[in-house]
Amino acid sequence: MKNKISLQPQLRVDLNAVKKNYQLLKKLTTPAECAAVVKDNAYGLGVFEIAKTLYESGCKTFFVSYVFEGIELRKLFDDVTIFLLQGIAEEEIPFIKQFRLIPVISTLDDLVLWEKQGDKNTKPAIQIETGLNRLGLHPEEIQTDVFKKALKNTEISLILSHLSCATESNHFMNHQQLSQFQQWIESLPKAPLSLSASDGIFLGKTFHYDMVRAGAALYGINTAPYRQNQMEPVVYIKATILKVFSVPDDQYVGYGATYRTYGNRKIATLSIGYGDGLPRYLQNKGKIWFEDENAHRYFAPIVGAISMDMLSCDVSHIPEHLVVPGKTGSIIDAYYTIDDLAKDAHTIGYECLTRLGHRFKRIHV
Amino acid sequence: MKNKISLQPQLRVDLNAVKKNYQLLKKLTTPAECAAVVKDNAYGLGVFEIAKTLYESGCKTFFVSYVFEGIELRKLFDDVTIFLLQGIAEEEIPFIKQFRLIPVISTLDDLVLWEKQGDKNTKPAIQIETGLNRLGLHPEEIQTDVFKKALKNTEISLILSHLSCATESNHFMNHQQLSQFQQWIESLPKAPLSLSASDGIFLGKTFHYDMVRAGAALYGINTAPYRQNQMEPVVYIKATILKVFSVPDDQYVGYGATYRTYGNRKIATLSIGYGDGLPRYLQNKGKIWFEDENAHRYFAPIVGAISMDMLSCDVSHIPEHLVVPGKTGSIIDAYYTIDDLAKDAHTIGYECLTRLGHRFKRIHV
Repeated sequence: MKNKISLQPQLRVDLNAVKKNYQLLKKLTTPAECAAVVKDNAYGLGVFEIAKTLYESGCKTFFVSYVFEGIELRKLFDDVTIFLLQGIAEEEIPFIKQFRLIPVISTLDDLVLWEKQGDKNTKPAIQIETGLNRLGLHPEEIQTDVFKKALKNTEISLILSHLSCATESNHFMNHQQLSQFQQWIESLPKAPLSLSASDGIFLGKTFHYDMVRAGAALYGINTAPYRQNQMEPVVYIKATILKVFSVPDDQYVGYGATYRTYGNRKIATLSIGYGDGLPRYLQNKGKIWFEDENAHRYFAPIVGAISMDMLSCDVSHIPEHLVVPGKTGSIIDAYYTIDDLAKDAHTIGYECLTRLGHRFKRIHV
Repeated sequence: MKNKISLQPQLRVDLNAVKKNYQLLKKLTTPAECAAVVKDNAYGLGVFEIAKTLYESGCKTFFVSYVFEGIELRKLFDDVTIFLLQGIAEEEIPFIKQFRLIPVISTLDDLVLWEKQGDKNTKPAIQIETGLNRLGLHPEEIQTDVFKKALKNTEISLILSHLSCATESNHFMNHQQLSQFQQWIESLPKAPLSLSASDGIFLGKTFHYDMVRAGAALYGINTAPYRQNQMEPVVYIKATILKVFSVPDDQYVGYGATYRTYGNRKIATLSIGYGDGLPRYLQNKGKIWFEDENAHRYFAPIVGAISMDMLSCDVSHIPEHLVVPGKTGSIIDAYYTIDDLAKDAHTIGYECLTRLGHRFKRIHV
């Protein structure tokens, strides 16, 4: 009997877990500063609630990608440092100044632009390339007269680079990038240094320098998958059962008739789909979890294609009283985490998080 | 030289194309009514702008999934019919009444609930199961006394079902579902009938009945992929070039070092990533498009992993003046459409659309 609930899927974000995760990362990295990466709406989980939690836990430095994200954050906190990872667009400079954002400069053009039009009191950060080959100043840029001249007039607040393979503890790139970083900073003016994001934190003290930039690990993702996750789970997703029904032998379930019944099956249709960010790739592959009074867990395999707003799963083997319209099944919980879902969906937790849609009832606890 | 632009990726929605698409679908389906499906923020494209365009094109019936979507729509238009596909939750009934939404009933519980607590002046729709096995009344439900009794007191505004395989014109399920539908409606009270969504429209008049429910095709997706797309493209996505740089032989690009250079390559990093909804699956596989003054098109293959906010592509072969920081590359345009991107990403256009993130500069023209 379906009542006293509404039908949208539910996303619960455990802010206490975020706090614990921040405290653990801080402990692992002291005396380095532990900054937080809250770009892309705090990886999809809600930047306001997440940033407030981190702020109350003592975090005073934040990284975002875009100016609008920096402005949102500045409106929350007057006394934090906010770095802009994506660099500078000329038209955005007035906002960068007004909201006291610190651009991370990765090109000579940006450096010259900031020198000419930037806030003289704001020392920019510079990002140097050490092997990720994505966004950072290259050796040939650092050696130009333009760079040297610009740096004479500009103090730097942070020199940073980014590791490419730090989720693998023994990857050769880790030490190659470390030694590149070490080599380049010797030719640069003295400034605080930062090389590691979440994954680099677990590589040990040599990788911490003056500041680490914690992102994914704060949100419960295991960024050191070569060992058990030390982070608390942050994300819980549930969906409401809309209908439970029997399908006889030799019929099909879902779009494209990709699932065929062998024998009579009991199917439940739940109110969540790829429109909510659940990867469509999980068709005939994902799992929906149910738990009884004795904390015994069952999973129902997703059968057939995932629709935009719904999915179906085979609940034939699950105790009847758990599978009733109006009750819920779990998509992600403390046991089957965002990392587990990502593995089944052949991607990474980061993508699954940032994909979560706008239709969830979002609950921050 | 990067200036006069801001760095967020850009999503342009061609509302004129939406209008043309609606007109074509209407022409194909007259005398049946052509309703529009605008659930999930109009498949991610912006329900306000899309619904207004459709309304001005003569559309007076809309389908959404959830009550909150229905309320949004009712606040825009007083004189349209709004169906709720996801059914009824008891706590939402007051809102369903207040905003004059029409529930699509797919379970006996919902039917009984609406009979007891629903608006006596609102005739609900009922959905019957014909082979999708997702959400709809099954034969054994239709034959119960509960159903027959409820239907004695309740007039019905629409009887609908949903095709599972209509993107394949010759799929055996199409005619099987058609004949199931035909069979069941004979035992039901007389009411307007609807069997087809976008894909069913292209199966011809027999599938149209009194109303079709156009969704994906409105947004430019080819729902009849066995022939050339007749729909106008609606979605255009561009991203700003942040940096262009050379990478020497035998180096790596991106996370996980999944791409290795053979010889010196010229790489461009653009400001868009999976955090914006671009499937991470496109790593070492997707394409970024550039066009010169003579409309000659070039594509740069995406190299390395896609990051949350960035991707890199190999632009070695592309005329230099097209690949300059501050200029843009195209992710989706009229030539390489949402369907093409979806194919490269091993999924369907529907998923790619609904996944588009919140950081786009959205432009409706």
